[in-house]
This record gives sequence, C-alpha cells and structure tokens, in this order.
Amino acid sequence: MSRLDLRNGSVEMVHGSGGRAMGQLIEELFARALRNEWLDQRNDQAQFELPPGRVVMATDSHVISPLFFPGGDIGSLAVHGTINDVAMAGARPCYLAAGFILEEGFPLADLARIVESMAAAAREAGVPVVTGDTKVVEHGKGDGVFITTTGVGVVPPGLHLSGDQARPGDRILLSGSIGDHGVTILSLREGLGFEADIGSDSQALHGLVAAMLAAVPEIRCLRDPTRGGLGNTLNELARQSGVGMQLVERAIPVREPVRAACEFLGLDPLYVANEGKLIAICPAERAERLLEAMRAHPQGREAAIIGTVVADEHRFVQMETPFGGSRMVDWLSGEQLPRIC
Amino acid sequence: MSRLDLRNGSVEMVHGSGGRAMGQLIEELFARALRNEWLDQRNDQAQFELPPGRVVMATDSHVISPLFFPGGDIGSLAVHGTINDVAMAGARPCYLAAGFILEEGFPLADLARIVESMAAAAREAGVPVVTGDTKVVEHGKGDGVFITTTGVGVVPPGLHLSGDQARPGDRILLSGSIGDHGVTILSLREGLGFEADIGSDSQALHGLVAAMLAAVPEIRCLRDPTRGGLGNTLNELARQSGVGMQLVERAIPVREPVRAACEFLGLDPLYVANEGKLIAICPAERAERLLEAMRAHPQGREAAIIGTVVADEHRFVQMETPFGGSRMVDWLSGEQLPRIC
Repeated sequence: MSRLDLRNGSVEMVHGSGGRAMGQLIEELFARALRNEWLDQRNDQAQFELPPGRVVMATDSHVISPLFFPGGDIGSLAVHGTINDVAMAGARPCYLAAGFILEEGFPLADLARIVESMAAAAREAGVPVVTGDTKVVEHGKGDGVFITTTGVGVVPPGLHLSGDQARPGDRILLSGSIGDHGVTILSLREGLGFEADIGSDSQALHGLVAAMLAAVPEIRCLRDPTRGGLGNTLNELARQSGVGMQLVERAIPVREPVRAACEFLGLDPLYVANEGKLIAICPAERAERLLEAMRAHPQGREAAIIGTVVADEHRFVQMETPFGGSRMVDWLSGEQLPRIC
Repeated sequence: MSRLDLRNGSVEMVHGSGGRAMGQLIEELFARALRNEWLDQRNDQAQFELPPGRVVMATDSHVISPLFFPGGDIGSLAVHGTINDVAMAGARPCYLAAGFILEEGFPLADLARIVESMAAAAREAGVPVVTGDTKVVEHGKGDGVFITTTGVGVVPPGLHLSGDQARPGDRILLSGSIGDHGVTILSLREGLGFEADIGSDSQALHGLVAAMLAAVPEIRCLRDPTRGGLGNTLNELARQSGVGMQLVERAIPVREPVRAACEFLGLDPLYVANEGKLIAICPAERAERLLEAMRAHPQGREAAIIGTVVADEHRFVQMETPFGGSRMVDWLSGEQLPRIC
C-alpha cells in the first residue's frame, strides 16, 4: 500500500470504513501530527490520572466557514474554544478528545494543515489531544470538515464559579476588545477586505484565568462571549443569576477597524462573536485588584470594568450611552452571523 | 415568542446563532428531554466528582444513514457507542457530552424523537448527558443530524486492559452473534427487506463488562468490533500485541437471517459492523470461567470461545474453516459499508 498522497490526494469514503485506508489516514496524518503517549497506544479510548478536585467537561462542535481565516483555522479554533469552555469554570484544562466529520473529496493537504494547526495549538496550550474519531460522509453531505472537541479539566478544591453567582453590586469586567473574530469571518466570507486590518482573537485563555484566580479567588463567574457576543452572554448571566446589569458603553473596548467594519456591515459589535475574550464578575471591592491582575497578563492588557450588577426582577441588561442616555441590550433575536465557530 | 413547533417546525439557521432562538431550542427540546442536575445549571460546561481510579475518555462522531433503523436510531447509537468505547477499558462509564450538528430544514419532530431516544438510552444505561453543544449548517452542507458523543469513566485501581496485552496461548472470546447491525442498515438503505427478520444489536455493554471483570479480573483486553467488524478488529489487536490469531469459523455465531442477507449482498459477516458485541482476550486457564460469566449475563448468552492467540511475527489472523482448511482473515481493504455508525 503506497503512502498517503498528502499533496494531491483527497478524502475518500474508504477513509471512514474502519479498514486499512482508515488506519493509514490515522497513522500518516492524525497520529503523526498530534502524537503523544496516549494516541501512541492506539486504543479506542485514552486513560490518564487527574489531579484532585472537581472534574469539568465541555464539548463544542465547530462548523466555521471558511475553514481558514486571519488569526487561525478550524483546527486551532477547535482547541481554543473547548479549552476556554473548560477554563471558564475556573478549571485547569488537562486533556482533549477530537471527533472529525470529513466530506468526501476534501483535499488531504488542507486536512493536514488543519490537523497540524490543531497540534500546534494543543502544544502551545499544554493540553494534548489524547483520543479521537474520524468519519467520512459523501460529497454534498458535509462541508469540508467539522470538528467536535471535548475537554476535561480540574477545578482546584474550594472554587465554585457558576453563571448563577452574580449579586447586585458586583462589577463586570471584560478582558479586551470585542467583535474581532466575527467581523474577520464575515468580512472574509463577503470578500470585503476588512480582514486586512483585523484578525480573529482566537486564543486559549486558561493562563489568564489562572492569573485572575490567583489574584482574586472570589471571582463569581467567568464566561467567554462567543456566539451571540457580549450582549447575549450578559443576558444569559443575568437570567441565570436573577439580576440586572448596567453597562457603560464607552468602557467597552472596540478596535477602530472593527467599529468601521461593523458600521459598514450594519452589525452591532455587542452581538458579534469573540473567541479569545472573557467576562468576569466579582465583588465590587475586589474589582480593582482583578483589573490589575488582568492588565498584567498579555491577554488582558486592554481589560476594563464595563459595568455593575444591579437588582432587577426583569433581569434587564441596560447600557449608558456616551451621550448620557440609556439603551436596552436585549437578547439577540434574529440570525446575525451563521457558522461563526 | 411562541413555543417551538415540535410537530411541523424545522431546524432554521437562527437555531445556531447563540441567541434567543437557540436558547429556545435548548430549553424546549434538548434540556427538557435530557434533563438532569448538570444541564439544569445552564453553564457551558458540567462539573462533577469522579470516584478514585484512572480516568478514561472516548469520543465518537456518529453519521449513520438512515437515522432511524430497526433496533435504534442515531440518538441511542450515539449513547451506546461511546459508553462501549469507555467500557472496553474496563471502566465504569460515568458521564456523557453530546455535540449536535444539525442541517437547516431538518424536521424538529425527528430531532425530538432522536433526542428522546438518546435520553432513554442514557437513563437506561445510568450515564447522563451532562453538557452539550448545538450547531446548524445550511441545507445541503450536512445530512439531517450528526452527533458526537464523548464519555468519561473510571477504571478501578489495579486493572489495566489494553489492546497490546494479548499473549500466545490466550483465548479469544466473543459475546454473541456478528453482523446484525451492519446488515440491518444496509438492507434498510437498499430497500431489501431483510430488516424485517433482523435488527441492530446496538446496546450498552458496561453491565456485561462489569460482570466479566468481577469473574475474571485477569482479562487482557476488550474491544467492540464496530466499523470493520470482527475481522478488522482482531487484526488491530494482533498488530498492537505483536501476535497472530487462530480462529475456528464454526465457533463464531452468525444468525441465520444475517448469513442469508450477507450471501445475497456479497458481504462477509466477519467484516460487518456490530454495535452491541465485544471481543475479550484472557489467559487460557481463565477462559472457561469467563465464558460461564458471559453466558450468565443476558447480553452474553450466545458467547463463545472463538480462537487462540498464537506466536506469529507476521501477526496474521487465520481461521480454520468447517471443512478443515485454513483461511487468512486479512485487514479489510476496500470500502464495505459507508456511514454505518
């Protein structure tokens, strides 16, 4: 059997059959790029020890289109997205699993590029992909590649972060500018060229989270404003905690090219997806210390206190505009950006 | 906002947007069917305690076509398949995560049926789905629904099963008849009608595994012969352990309607997928005890000792035919059955 043609070959139905061709795809592409002691065992599952503490598990299916974009690709995004969902519980992410759904005809060169990017992101984050699965669907029944990543991690004893912990008086912090990821993808998809000045913010945030918790273990909750953006994520947290929120618009960082692109596209940056930012809610008296810890970390240099949790039986999120008025930040109701992650 | 129309509605792009419509789909369909204390928290991840022992993690993407079949559907299959991958390490499966990739236009009634079947399978197995994710792709970019399930479980201290543990002299046991799942799906897909007499064997095997390990903790390895069937799975184990295998064809149970369908379809039951059977390899002197334990369990009533591990530097799997001859059981090389799981 000749080697896999990683330059000109493409995914075939036989690569999903469980037979020799699938074995070859796994050996010569997946296992080679992602190599580690667990994958090397070639079992249908991985076994490992976890440090003491509560276990956290999160899963994310990635269907982003296009697959490659400034600042990343579906492979790195699939690693970052799931690591971040684990980290938002205050956990240290430890291991990842990855399930691939490939479309017949997809170029093996693109698949190799994606898997190598995934491997690099996992290495950089220190969170190995220890088990996986590969399926193939007929041409026209998928879209290149979909990747579902699942992560497990451990929360140190004593911490209990959850979206229902916000209390009136708490401060709301944001780790950096919003809208970069979503605007990059939309601009690329529509051929608008804005992506020359911007790029996805896709990154793994567990290092920032660890620094924040070391400084302020009293953090009530963390969440990454991905699909639905900052506006929707704050509404989720307000509903879970049974509180309202009062934001200050001028405190929310939006990069100038992102603002310009949003104006051109008729988008509100509050509802545009992010893949490398987080929201933190903490008691008022710890907010300055938390802000300082965030700004001292490379991923939180533009961090800001953007608002306050208030008592509100309607659980409204409201925002003070630069002109002194007030605006409702409602749930996103229509479709804003499909297949953004 | 009116309630989700579970009778006549269909999946729309907005159900993947991260906004109000996605929230409604999660509340009224997923969370309602799969309900448990973890999903009720509405966080992006689940937190739980695990009993002491090594942690096992396995993931499987399910793309089976058709979605509904005699003996199950993609929902129950996604639960059983991943539970089995965890159980084959000798582990007790504890928690599941599920990622859904939905195609625009897919009937909500079918989705509800699938999610309810998944919930029933999880309840029956005692392994809850504690976290999940939902994405939507455009019509023509998916195929109804794909489900990726990931499981975590725990191996009791002292056990270490792995595909590289088979030793010459060991016996090879099979828990029951082969080919049922694959033949059912193919017959249904081709409209052949054989499925009237047969059905998928899809089932969760962790109860059988626990009974087997209680009787014979010296089991070397377990594996479920899914894609690629018994023939391919035995080749995998032979390669991992660096051994050969000698099978006895007449000892391998194949149900009569499955044999007839395979003959008609030109399939070899050795390479047809199973979703509720397992292979066990154990030291020769423990084989009778293990067989007895398997036959005492409802899922192992037709269990059989089907062969012996032999020293063979070529790692060949060979089989004695009913007429006294010998036949090579090679790796599956072509495509046999696409999208069987």
